[in-house]
Amino acid sequence: MRIVTAQLNYKIGDFAGNFAKIAAQIEHYAATADMIVFSELCLSGYYPRDLILQSGFLPAQNAILEKITALTLQFPISVVVGFVEKNTGKGQPYHNSLTLIHRGKRLFTYHKRLLPVYNIFNEARHFAPGNQPGICSFQGLKFGFLICEDGWAGMDNYLYAGDPVDDLMAKSLDAIICINGSPSNLGKQHERLHRFTAIAKRCQAPLIFSNQVGGNDDIVFDGASFVCDKEGKLLGSLKAFTEDTGTIVLNKNHIEITSDYQAYHEIPEAEFFYEQILLGLKDYVRKSIFNKVVIGLSGGIDSALTLAVAVKALGANNVSAITMPSRYSSKGSITDSEALCKTLQVKLYTRSIEEEFTLALTQFKQVFGETPSALTEQNIQARLRGRILMEYSNQTGALVLSTGNKSELSVGYTTLYGDMTGGFNIIGDLYKTEVYKLAHYFNQRFPETPIPQAILDKVPSAELAPNQKDSDTLPEYAILDPILKLYIEGDLLPKHERREYHALLKDICSAYIHKVHQLVDAAEFKRRQSPPIVRVQRRAFGFGRQFPIAATYPKIDPTEKTDLT
Amino acid sequence: MRIVTAQLNYKIGDFAGNFAKIAAQIEHYAATADMIVFSELCLSGYYPRDLILQSGFLPAQNAILEKITALTLQFPISVVVGFVEKNTGKGQPYHNSLTLIHRGKRLFTYHKRLLPVYNIFNEARHFAPGNQPGICSFQGLKFGFLICEDGWAGMDNYLYAGDPVDDLMAKSLDAIICINGSPSNLGKQHERLHRFTAIAKRCQAPLIFSNQVGGNDDIVFDGASFVCDKEGKLLGSLKAFTEDTGTIVLNKNHIEITSDYQAYHEIPEAEFFYEQILLGLKDYVRKSIFNKVVIGLSGGIDSALTLAVAVKALGANNVSAITMPSRYSSKGSITDSEALCKTLQVKLYTRSIEEEFTLALTQFKQVFGETPSALTEQNIQARLRGRILMEYSNQTGALVLSTGNKSELSVGYTTLYGDMTGGFNIIGDLYKTEVYKLAHYFNQRFPETPIPQAILDKVPSAELAPNQKDSDTLPEYAILDPILKLYIEGDLLPKHERREYHALLKDICSAYIHKVHQLVDAAEFKRRQSPPIVRVQRRAFGFGRQFPIAATYPKIDPTEKTDLT
Repeated sequence: MRIVTAQLNYKIGDFAGNFAKIAAQIEHYAATADMIVFSELCLSGYYPRDLILQSGFLPAQNAILEKITALTLQFPISVVVGFVEKNTGKGQPYHNSLTLIHRGKRLFTYHKRLLPVYNIFNEARHFAPGNQPGICSFQGLKFGFLICEDGWAGMDNYLYAGDPVDDLMAKSLDAIICINGSPSNLGKQHERLHRFTAIAKRCQAPLIFSNQVGGNDDIVFDGASFVCDKEGKLLGSLKAFTEDTGTIVLNKNHIEITSDYQAYHEIPEAEFFYEQILLGLKDYVRKSIFNKVVIGLSGGIDSALTLAVAVKALGANNVSAITMPSRYSSKGSITDSEALCKTLQVKLYTRSIEEEFTLALTQFKQVFGETPSALTEQNIQARLRGRILMEYSNQTGALVLSTGNKSELSVGYTTLYGDMTGGFNIIGDLYKTEVYKLAHYFNQRFPETPIPQAILDKVPSAELAPNQKDSDTLPEYAILDPILKLYIEGDLLPKHERREYHALLKDICSAYIHKVHQLVDAAEFKRRQSPPIVRVQRRAFGFGRQFPIAATYPKIDPTEKTDLT
Repeated sequence: MRIVTAQLNYKIGDFAGNFAKIAAQIEHYAATADMIVFSELCLSGYYPRDLILQSGFLPAQNAILEKITALTLQFPISVVVGFVEKNTGKGQPYHNSLTLIHRGKRLFTYHKRLLPVYNIFNEARHFAPGNQPGICSFQGLKFGFLICEDGWAGMDNYLYAGDPVDDLMAKSLDAIICINGSPSNLGKQHERLHRFTAIAKRCQAPLIFSNQVGGNDDIVFDGASFVCDKEGKLLGSLKAFTEDTGTIVLNKNHIEITSDYQAYHEIPEAEFFYEQILLGLKDYVRKSIFNKVVIGLSGGIDSALTLAVAVKALGANNVSAITMPSRYSSKGSITDSEALCKTLQVKLYTRSIEEEFTLALTQFKQVFGETPSALTEQNIQARLRGRILMEYSNQTGALVLSTGNKSELSVGYTTLYGDMTGGFNIIGDLYKTEVYKLAHYFNQRFPETPIPQAILDKVPSAELAPNQKDSDTLPEYAILDPILKLYIEGDLLPKHERREYHALLKDICSAYIHKVHQLVDAAEFKRRQSPPIVRVQRRAFGFGRQFPIAATYPKIDPTEKTDLT
């Protein structure tokens, strides 16, 4: 039996568009393959959130499910799709389901049994869990089915009372087909392979892992679908971060990939950062029906990197830049921005804020009767710049990309309606030290369009006051970032990484670390108003981290390492 | 047995402060009562969200649980508290629990069995459900225990497979004690009484309902704790929207309230709006450690109402206002604002944006080489005003209250970083027609400090272009609001209300209604950057309504009324 994995990029709720993609693959493979496997909730795209609850959703989805079913009469290939099915029993109103369609009939349906409700996931909000194992014999072969989280119960995960994989053991399966909406983040590809090859071995059955690809708001799916044999040996994978399809040949006791599959290679960290935010931006722009973006260039690394990645994602013609100097701007802030835009062939506007800044200060004093404080002055500048970017956006329809990194957003070293202005942020889940890593990677990968060395070399500064440096207010990033990583996502980091950070911080006093924690806590109100940030790390700001604002945050002992033993 | 219900206002995560409140009541009632009942998760306040997962949370909470336990040795009264308990089995790491403490010992512990995961609720993210009924004999009486959602399974609610109330039936209970973190919204008090008096009757046991009170970020708890007898007859309730305590006398076959309880009265709609947003604002300001607020006054009803309520919540000394006229401002925009501030004794600053607006237009043309479009021009004005409010905020520490209503926020008739600027919004869950209702109520209730009639009478306008009126762009609010209510929360409205709206809209063409739906869908990116909005309706923007941005929204048939039969 020839089985195709179709790793496609869906737009949420776009049933017409998603159907066209699915139908094209069915047509394409009908003559050469026996079965084609799409991904979890492929009809609507994963994850539709509360769209599922709207009255228009199910009829629109079911209409294309019927069209796909009808298509299998015309094109003789069996189809596995993921979809939302009405729950006719008690519990939440829907199931997250999978169906095998053959010659105009749904032969088999399976309901996802484990519904993730942690981090960015919230499936129990919409779905009732299934309670039946997914086993089905088809054309002489015996298949086991899983949907994404169903495979994540084993090992040291005690979130779930039962493990659907147990029900696929010792069942003499010819293959396990797992359809997924598995988002990518740092370390995820490795973890995913580790888990699912173990499942294949445990069940003594080859495993076909089919994932979606593409960015949906803040979440990026890397695809990277793969196949392993019954000993858990990885046979090959589809490309990461792009649509791809591949055929395997499955028989009793034999599985073989075709040349569509490539050897799996684990993506190095900096390359992962690049591919993740590149695709996140591409798809947000495309799926929001924007064409162009605009970026305010400060002369610093954050805005330069954002611009450089945007050019690779969208093309230089679709990217504009504005430099907005004030009295506190260094000479380099303009010349470096000019050099950057020249290299990347981006149109750069220069719009001094000096005159408006002066007027704002004067009027402030006239009306409020006092001289603006240093904080007020700094924020006026940032907000004038935010407004100018939005003027350009309103005038041209370009999407403003905001350029705060995760270190700044963590401690609140950022201005609401100022540098936080924008509809999307592609580097907001990269710590400052990682912004540098990615910039260096960019320059290695694209030596013909490098970010100017002067930008990489300069000391980080907001340039909102005379001779200001980030380090006047914040610890050096080499110290700050490990403190932040441990505080924000320490529980999700691999042990070796936590050990490394604790070693780095061993001479930093606890009171100082606690002060950083307090900054993070106190900045929650700013982050609540942030645009979507492309998720990169294990835990990103946004839906994956849900904290109260008007609250007291319990103190955490920064030396606590009990979980490292 | 004399049983006290303590309806208190907790700050999330403030274990020291919450302990002090609880301890004070224990001391106060030790001599005169036998048992005191607090509310769900009272040690941390409901709902701590992901704070529960932070390593500092449980030790800090357990420390005060121990202190409370020790206190019962010193003060001879039994105590019922709600708290987070570690789950030692499989599943999520914690339980949402209740314990009965007597003379230094925890006699009985119950784990909440139904965990809500809909609307604003997300308890399955943190808690594993309990699976044991809550029945405990104590001092010759037999008690049944429930925690909040445990009581919401019956009637026509099919969300849950089982109903914990079934396990309390025919058990000859002397009383059911239900502890709650039950937020208030339109219609909630009525629904709550309806359900819980039915439970008492079903179980043939008196029911003691203990709720928390106060605002936590966007969610307000009304308190309104109550007691009913075993036939479901309401005996009395504690005050709504304020801390209150009350004693009942319970014996075998007899329950009696004391004079602490008052006769229950259902709060009329406009009064409910007022009390809900008043308490929401009071507590957000207090719990965020602000003292003062500032409001931009346009001369319109939204900002006037916000100011008026803020003065009642915080006192005139803690409220400032800024009027920021431009060339398009009507004369009334200033004079009416002056009259309002005079009446309410609020300091008003006048800060024309005209000079800055002119400069911005000039510079725009110089740099971008074209005349700003109407949209660009309008947004520049709104954003200049937003920036000025933030200047005042940065300078003085006052919290900016944004003043968009739900009708505007729904259709995106609002400017990001302009009139959406602010840390909190108290009228953002009131539709425009309800803003008027509340303003009229305010003037009836406070005839000595009315909102000027001129403000109530004027035609709604953003005043961002010559002779602009809201109705140039939007349908009349009397039509728009029912369309929005049906679209945003139609599934949660009482049938009679839906019927009424459908009747109102019977002559409006479907294409027109669909156009409004599309405006709502397209404005999701703006709302994502909104400050917290006090929740008033059955479904508010924010955590209670989770939609994608870069998505296609399936079309809904606006004439669909199948659920009204």
